[in-house]
Amino acid sequence: MSRFLGGEDHESYFTNTQRHRVVYEILTKTVYGRKKRSEVGVDRLINEGAYTAAFPLHEGPFELPKFEIRPEELNQRQVLYHYWARWFEWYKYQPLDHIREYFGEKIALYFAWLGFYTAWLLPAAVVGTLVFVSGVMSMGTNTPAKEICTSGDTYLMCPLCNTCNAWNMSEICTMAKMGYLFDHPGTVLFSVFMSFWAVTFLEYWKRKMSTLAHHWDCMDFHEEEERPRPEFAAKAPTMEQNPVTGVKEPYFPEKTRLTRMFTGSMVIIMMLCVVMIFLVTVVMCRGIIIVMMFHTESPVLRTEAGTIANISSSIVNLGLILLMGRVYTALAEQLTKWEMHRTQTQYDNAFIFKVFIFQFVNFYSSPFYVAFFKGRFVGYPTNYGTLFGMRNEDCGPGGCLIELAEQLFIIMVGKQLINNIQEFIIPKVKAWRQKRTLAKVLGSKASHEPQRWEEDYKLVECEGLFEEYLEMVLQFGFITIFVAAFPLAPLFALLNNWVEIRLDAHKFVCEYRRPVAERAQNIGVWFNILEALSHLSVIANAFLIAFTSDFLPRLLYQYKFDNELHGYVNFTLAYAPLNHTENCRYKAYRDNNGNHSLFYWELLAVRLSFIIAFEHVVFFVLRAIDWIVPDVPESLEVKIKRERYLAKQALAENQEALLQATHPLET
Amino acid sequence: MSRFLGGEDHESYFTNTQRHRVVYEILTKTVYGRKKRSEVGVDRLINEGAYTAAFPLHEGPFELPKFEIRPEELNQRQVLYHYWARWFEWYKYQPLDHIREYFGEKIALYFAWLGFYTAWLLPAAVVGTLVFVSGVMSMGTNTPAKEICTSGDTYLMCPLCNTCNAWNMSEICTMAKMGYLFDHPGTVLFSVFMSFWAVTFLEYWKRKMSTLAHHWDCMDFHEEEERPRPEFAAKAPTMEQNPVTGVKEPYFPEKTRLTRMFTGSMVIIMMLCVVMIFLVTVVMCRGIIIVMMFHTESPVLRTEAGTIANISSSIVNLGLILLMGRVYTALAEQLTKWEMHRTQTQYDNAFIFKVFIFQFVNFYSSPFYVAFFKGRFVGYPTNYGTLFGMRNEDCGPGGCLIELAEQLFIIMVGKQLINNIQEFIIPKVKAWRQKRTLAKVLGSKASHEPQRWEEDYKLVECEGLFEEYLEMVLQFGFITIFVAAFPLAPLFALLNNWVEIRLDAHKFVCEYRRPVAERAQNIGVWFNILEALSHLSVIANAFLIAFTSDFLPRLLYQYKFDNELHGYVNFTLAYAPLNHTENCRYKAYRDNNGNHSLFYWELLAVRLSFIIAFEHVVFFVLRAIDWIVPDVPESLEVKIKRERYLAKQALAENQEALLQATHPLET
Repeated sequence: MSRFLGGEDHESYFTNTQRHRVVYEILTKTVYGRKKRSEVGVDRLINEGAYTAAFPLHEGPFELPKFEIRPEELNQRQVLYHYWARWFEWYKYQPLDHIREYFGEKIALYFAWLGFYTAWLLPAAVVGTLVFVSGVMSMGTNTPAKEICTSGDTYLMCPLCNTCNAWNMSEICTMAKMGYLFDHPGTVLFSVFMSFWAVTFLEYWKRKMSTLAHHWDCMDFHEEEERPRPEFAAKAPTMEQNPVTGVKEPYFPEKTRLTRMFTGSMVIIMMLCVVMIFLVTVVMCRGIIIVMMFHTESPVLRTEAGTIANISSSIVNLGLILLMGRVYTALAEQLTKWEMHRTQTQYDNAFIFKVFIFQFVNFYSSPFYVAFFKGRFVGYPTNYGTLFGMRNEDCGPGGCLIELAEQLFIIMVGKQLINNIQEFIIPKVKAWRQKRTLAKVLGSKASHEPQRWEEDYKLVECEGLFEEYLEMVLQFGFITIFVAAFPLAPLFALLNNWVEIRLDAHKFVCEYRRPVAERAQNIGVWFNILEALSHLSVIANAFLIAFTSDFLPRLLYQYKFDNELHGYVNFTLAYAPLNHTENCRYKAYRDNNGNHSLFYWELLAVRLSFIIAFEHVVFFVLRAIDWIVPDVPESLEVKIKRERYLAKQALAENQEALLQATHPLET
Repeated sequence: MSRFLGGEDHESYFTNTQRHRVVYEILTKTVYGRKKRSEVGVDRLINEGAYTAAFPLHEGPFELPKFEIRPEELNQRQVLYHYWARWFEWYKYQPLDHIREYFGEKIALYFAWLGFYTAWLLPAAVVGTLVFVSGVMSMGTNTPAKEICTSGDTYLMCPLCNTCNAWNMSEICTMAKMGYLFDHPGTVLFSVFMSFWAVTFLEYWKRKMSTLAHHWDCMDFHEEEERPRPEFAAKAPTMEQNPVTGVKEPYFPEKTRLTRMFTGSMVIIMMLCVVMIFLVTVVMCRGIIIVMMFHTESPVLRTEAGTIANISSSIVNLGLILLMGRVYTALAEQLTKWEMHRTQTQYDNAFIFKVFIFQFVNFYSSPFYVAFFKGRFVGYPTNYGTLFGMRNEDCGPGGCLIELAEQLFIIMVGKQLINNIQEFIIPKVKAWRQKRTLAKVLGSKASHEPQRWEEDYKLVECEGLFEEYLEMVLQFGFITIFVAAFPLAPLFALLNNWVEIRLDAHKFVCEYRRPVAERAQNIGVWFNILEALSHLSVIANAFLIAFTSDFLPRLLYQYKFDNELHGYVNFTLAYAPLNHTENCRYKAYRDNNGNHSLFYWELLAVRLSFIIAFEHVVFFVLRAIDWIVPDVPESLEVKIKRERYLAKQALAENQEALLQATHPLET
């Protein structure tokens, strides 16, 4: 949607978006001023159906001419297409200055950010892959897994459901080996690394951002006179003086807006409850699937029950997430419109906030559940914890971390795949539909050489950067918050982003109508969200390593008993209470009465101390990084100071000259 | 010291400090330019001994005339004296605008901050006093203290030194009762309150600061062209072009400066080691005093041994702290000079940083030791921990918190008292000395009516705000970091600051030469220090409540065993190991072999969980406060926007008019 900030004076607005010619009609106040107060503009006319569209024109076709021409003769759009929007260009820097000139600062900043983020993903992906490979290499040295595999029928385990049979520990040999891949000392180091990575990335992005803002001359860009949105203007009941510009403007009472925002929040909370209900449903389905598979006599199904159930439920989960996301985004748009925000910026921020909160819960609640809650409330034989009569689910024999990794893989990679396919197909479908409409309207006149605006009318309207940013920010969350469980996440993110950049570039250059250029100083509220995510990731990683990973129990066992972990498996298995029918074992640190053993409490203290130490050290170092790395590069700082100094000097000289000119006799 | 930023053009500098007439001599480049490159100025001449002083003049005498005159006829200095610098004015707001006009923004901001801080201390002091009073009121309901007092010879306690005798728990009845004063649930609430108080205070100070900066028109004040310090200019070996102004300036190679700064850091670390050695010495002395007192047969000395030793050692400690502070500040000044910082701002920041780090350790190391380390490494009968052959000291029977409170009281209140006395006396002594020097110089001419500059020469040179800020910042640390131990701290701080404001005002108006006015946008690096202290206080309070206070053990005992705390005293006392000569008790959660009991580990887990929960909740809420309270008040925001809008409009109109004037035919 092409948006007009100032409805009354198009001229001054269009000088802002220099070099863009726009299909527009000049409206005089006299036509509309009387009918409905003073807010007028093309947007209003489109809103009322007088026009079907208004957009700046592209500079020409994007295809390169068939005959050879010199690069200087290409139009801007062709340049962008040739040097940026093609797959062959994947290894090249983006021509940011050209993007900015053609699309404006806001869109250029998005691509600058995306490129910067992708470049920073490279080291993270390399380290992550190394960690994963080192896990694969050292899988053989894992004593507990070896002990499990060679245990035969030494460890008779308690049944996993009330009607199931007891089983032998040695059956899950493969899973135990696999579990080590996602739960070895390297992953701990890697999650520390990623915490630092995330914060350093944001620090350096600040520097990049200020450099770009200075280069593009929008460092001191403030929007003082943002006009009300046309929707707002149309529906506002009264007029009030704007305190900044002094002009009378449509006004919506603050109080009503607050109650509306409150109602809006209630709707969000309701939707979040729906997400939670879905989550519980998926969990219960998973339980039922597992029980069903235990009852089949196939040994493969029995040992792999957890994995199969987990993967299938993750796929269902992904479907639900995408569905809910779509429904909710539509709902949020209506809600935000109904909340009556005066300016587009306010509207955007409210919308971003709403959707982000929801999508955050939508995407992360299931991994959070697996990481921090699954398997914590199982209880012990003779005293199992239950929910709706079903026994609370426990993590599989490989540990919770491997299930988390499976789930992350499916949700993250699956989402990226589906997204990219959508981004590829949907514009094409839309463009085809648009073309048909145009053809109908033009009818027989279609034979003439099509005008630029007809060509551009066939394109899809640009939907803004919201979806793009949201996708990237959710990805950032996946690679930082759960990195302890899934060291390959940065690699997948990197691969996705390499595709994403060119896909987005192609969309903007070839498939979208040219958007109205907008200025921006930075990436706005998204930066704050990224910062919050990076802090959250430190906390999440601390808890993940302390409670979900087997790192600390192993360490404590090594310290107290055996440095080679001999006997560790036996040590982690408690005996079922004596009043239980079978004399089986289960994974816990409990004595024969089901009470927590001394080791449990010691371990708990170690775990909590680890969290405290980890968080304090990491946050302290992050603070130090924040403090040491200046937000503006030193050379730029000097440049800005120099400019300011020269400006001051020029002003002083100017005034002196003026004084001389007006009072020539006094000197 | 009156400082000149621009040596070359006094004129332009003096327009900055409008309305200040300065005793100065104009130096022409030709005189000095040849001899020693281009840096010239009054400072240089004072440095070389050509002049003895240079300072702006006061506006007249500060005393009010004996006959009645109308307020309009008072000079600025008399106004300040009359309405601000007298004791009677203690309940009034400060006339900040007048202060700013007379002394410049930098000094006015200090007083604004001091006043703001004092006002915010009021609620903290009220709540703190209430908490203390509620402790006094509920002292009688304290079951453990009652049990101790009525225990008779039930609990035979192990001897407190190797040659001492066993003693009865009931002997320390008074201390047990007193201990409750500083360790009841109210103090926990109060320390949470103070964490929020500190951060909210800083948030609102930001608002106040931006309002003042806007009001005084120094919101966009940037120092682009700060000139090198005269000391720097005199000693710099080469000349280089300044990248901002383009003028050739004295230059000191970056590399040499870095090695100097490194050496400087080494000296700081060495001095910190000295502080630590003093700390250990004091601790050992305290141990010796206690042992000596145990050996006297006086029962009073024996039961009060800890208190007496603690108080006397605290007084010694205070003496050492003040002495070390003085020695170190002198050293730091020399060091910072030697480090060759180009501008005064850099010099000031380096000096502040050095002295603050040192004074922080100097003042807080002893309380930190008592709060977090004392009594942790005592060991148990038959296996005591030792240091240099002496048994590690344990906290007194009332708990560590009461000792901490004693120490804080002595260090904080003692320091404030000594400081205020110094601030009162020292200027008077200095002024008297100055007067004598002047009298000698003038000799017989002394009979004529003294000129303004002679009068002012008799005054003391203004030493800057460093000492004042440092004092307040250290105080802020005391009232926030250790607030859990000493709820009366804010009250004492409040009383001190009420005195401090008028004392400082009197000093500036009556006893100091008028300082050269300087502009400033904010209180500079002190704000960052305050922020760091407020964050540190949250962490310190969490650990204090979790580990030093008896709050959590009591809570856990209530939860597990008895809600009324019956039997708590017995529960906290372990039996000495069987191979010990006597069958005595000691305070610990250990079994008969000296190993930690299950309860110990449970308690440790609870303690650590408390820290995690406390910090996460408090920091989260602080974030939320930071986010909700905008740094610039909304009304000011609108005002600034309005001003910017009008400026833009004026510029546009101006340009249009210019265009009209130059090309009149085109319209």
